[in-house]
Amino acid sequence: MNAEIIAIGSELLTPHRTDTNSLFLTEQLNGIGVDVVYKTIVGDDRSRLTETIALAWNRSPIVITIGGLGPTEDDLTRECAAQALGKSLRQDPSLAESIEARFRARGMRMPEINLRQAMHIDGAAILDNSKGTAPGQWIEENSRALMLLPGPPRELQPMFLESCLPRLRGIIPKAAIAKRVLRIVGLTESAAEQIVAPIYTKYANPVTTILAAPGEVQLHLKSFGDSQAAAEALVNELAPQLEQALGESVFSTDGASLEEVVGRALAAQQASLAVAESCTGGLLAERITSVSGSSAYFLGGVVCYSNTWKSDWLDVPPELIEAQGAVSSPVAEALAAGIRRRSGATYGVGITGIAGPGGGTPEKPVGLVYIALAGPHDSVVLEKRCYGEREIVRWQATQAALDMLRRTLAREKQSSGSQA
Amino acid sequence: MNAEIIAIGSELLTPHRTDTNSLFLTEQLNGIGVDVVYKTIVGDDRSRLTETIALAWNRSPIVITIGGLGPTEDDLTRECAAQALGKSLRQDPSLAESIEARFRARGMRMPEINLRQAMHIDGAAILDNSKGTAPGQWIEENSRALMLLPGPPRELQPMFLESCLPRLRGIIPKAAIAKRVLRIVGLTESAAEQIVAPIYTKYANPVTTILAAPGEVQLHLKSFGDSQAAAEALVNELAPQLEQALGESVFSTDGASLEEVVGRALAAQQASLAVAESCTGGLLAERITSVSGSSAYFLGGVVCYSNTWKSDWLDVPPELIEAQGAVSSPVAEALAAGIRRRSGATYGVGITGIAGPGGGTPEKPVGLVYIALAGPHDSVVLEKRCYGEREIVRWQATQAALDMLRRTLAREKQSSGSQA
Repeated sequence: MNAEIIAIGSELLTPHRTDTNSLFLTEQLNGIGVDVVYKTIVGDDRSRLTETIALAWNRSPIVITIGGLGPTEDDLTRECAAQALGKSLRQDPSLAESIEARFRARGMRMPEINLRQAMHIDGAAILDNSKGTAPGQWIEENSRALMLLPGPPRELQPMFLESCLPRLRGIIPKAAIAKRVLRIVGLTESAAEQIVAPIYTKYANPVTTILAAPGEVQLHLKSFGDSQAAAEALVNELAPQLEQALGESVFSTDGASLEEVVGRALAAQQASLAVAESCTGGLLAERITSVSGSSAYFLGGVVCYSNTWKSDWLDVPPELIEAQGAVSSPVAEALAAGIRRRSGATYGVGITGIAGPGGGTPEKPVGLVYIALAGPHDSVVLEKRCYGEREIVRWQATQAALDMLRRTLAREKQSSGSQA
Repeated sequence: MNAEIIAIGSELLTPHRTDTNSLFLTEQLNGIGVDVVYKTIVGDDRSRLTETIALAWNRSPIVITIGGLGPTEDDLTRECAAQALGKSLRQDPSLAESIEARFRARGMRMPEINLRQAMHIDGAAILDNSKGTAPGQWIEENSRALMLLPGPPRELQPMFLESCLPRLRGIIPKAAIAKRVLRIVGLTESAAEQIVAPIYTKYANPVTTILAAPGEVQLHLKSFGDSQAAAEALVNELAPQLEQALGESVFSTDGASLEEVVGRALAAQQASLAVAESCTGGLLAERITSVSGSSAYFLGGVVCYSNTWKSDWLDVPPELIEAQGAVSSPVAEALAAGIRRRSGATYGVGITGIAGPGGGTPEKPVGLVYIALAGPHDSVVLEKRCYGEREIVRWQATQAALDMLRRTLAREKQSSGSQA
């Protein structure tokens, strides 16, 4: 079954805003077996909006509009939807009363213009808005549905989940769907594709999609079945084959980010971590601490942006920096060892490199990064060439550092397991 | 004059991707006085794509398609555009030769499927692609234009700038446009609106738009004139009035980010900076060092995620943490003073707070943050309540820290100026 989404608002036609509500709605619709076949963005213009809704209603059985339900003159969705469907629009006294009550409860008087929000399309079910004053509307005819939802994500999301999803389940053919996401690090998209294509192309169901993000590749599997168990069985048949082919490049199959995976492994091994960063400027610490609860294993970090700091705070010998340069393998190792010794952490990471755009030389070009990991048994260092803008170089350097940690912690777990 | 944009590709109808190419195109079109009135996203489906292009061509004088120009069976834009406009499509031998030459130059044989990319719509101008194999096409009829552009931004952007923009200037009415962006910190969107609405609503030209981002509000001014000088004069009349009303809440009028503004002020005063972060976990250092050249004024930072670190690395007395709690005004001040003293920087910043979602108490709720700034003359500390998810709290805390620095540096500049 097909759906289309219409995002409404002149601000979405400026260079500053893009519609992101549709990503949430698409995910929810896909989850019940509905495909999105069109997304349209249209401004606060009466004739364009009316035509757009009429066209969509004409060609797709499920239509969702986003926005244009506020109280101002610019908020035209109710009127245009009524006109597109040839239905009347009337002020609903009980709806007006409930909007007024919402203002009263906050000790405020309802401005007159908010009565626009009490306009009710003939035959529509009113969808409560627990987070704002704009109620939604649901119009259903012959197993086809048009729903009008408010624009703010914190209002749209609960309204869709609580009021639309149950109604949609009533009109769409039942289908059980199972999903899995394999997240991969250390392989390019084409390298991953080459490994997995011979396997997944043998299956029409699950459908496999490959997506690339900076420093990461994702495989999305989606299967359809008569029952949930049947759908799950299909994913469970394909996913392990892909995992085996990809080996330890797969870092998660449950949606967890690389920083979460590393955090879980550190916590499970009761190990702690401290980091010393030069070119990444705090991004590694920031990513690690973006995980709630990271204080259980992350002790702290030092951003050593000057050579003096590298020596004073992390005991990197000035003569080493002099001889090898601040961007060098021995300095990365000294940073990792220094932060580990000074902090008493189980693991210490050191990063030094040239993020660009300036500072590169023929011998040490922009994008050259050294990443070192010092642990209880040994120390490793990686020389990596990153390509792209300053922020991409910094991101890829932290991605490589997290992956180095992940692989080391996995080996540690294995060897302690085999000793037991 | 109106334009519409059609983004093509089934991946844009998944929960994982949104069309962002249109932001670049919208900015470019707005810059020559063209408004975008529709954006449509459609999958790789022959009949839907043909209908979408036909509809757009029928209602808008400028139509831009993005994507679907690759060599595979899924790449349907050429065929569908030809059909929508009722034109023939033929393989162009010289185009085929130039695609083949591109492969030859890289020592590769052209795969047979790439000949699809040599299909040429009757009467279309071919747009060179300096960054890939997919040429674009430009079809012009009676001062109306359809252009087919490739999907990858690094191919689309130069092609639009080099081949489309000059042609568009030939068919659209001439208009001179001037722009200015006032970036504001420390005011909510509604507070800013209340201050500036009485001023900007007096002007129909420039048009003023207000936009909110986390921790920031922007005022976008755009004026139209018969000449560039006339357009600039209109912006130059309104902008200073807004700046005066908003006072030092305006941090930039030239597009510079808050971290760039702070960096410039530090560099101008030959001052240096070091930071000590707890709840922001490195985000402040990361933002400061995201500016190229920041090593000229940023010495480094410490992410002190444990109380031991606060004491060992930054001399915060353990008994102070014991008595006041790690999240407290005196600890923030001690962090700022500690990092300043230890590093020898002109300014030291200390941040401690509760980023959430866990860790809050009735006395010290999630979102409570203390930010301290220690300078050569004095030390200030701010208690701030942030609202929202962990990442929003962390962002707002760093925004407040940068703004505190900005205001202090401005006062410093003023007082040294008045002494001179």
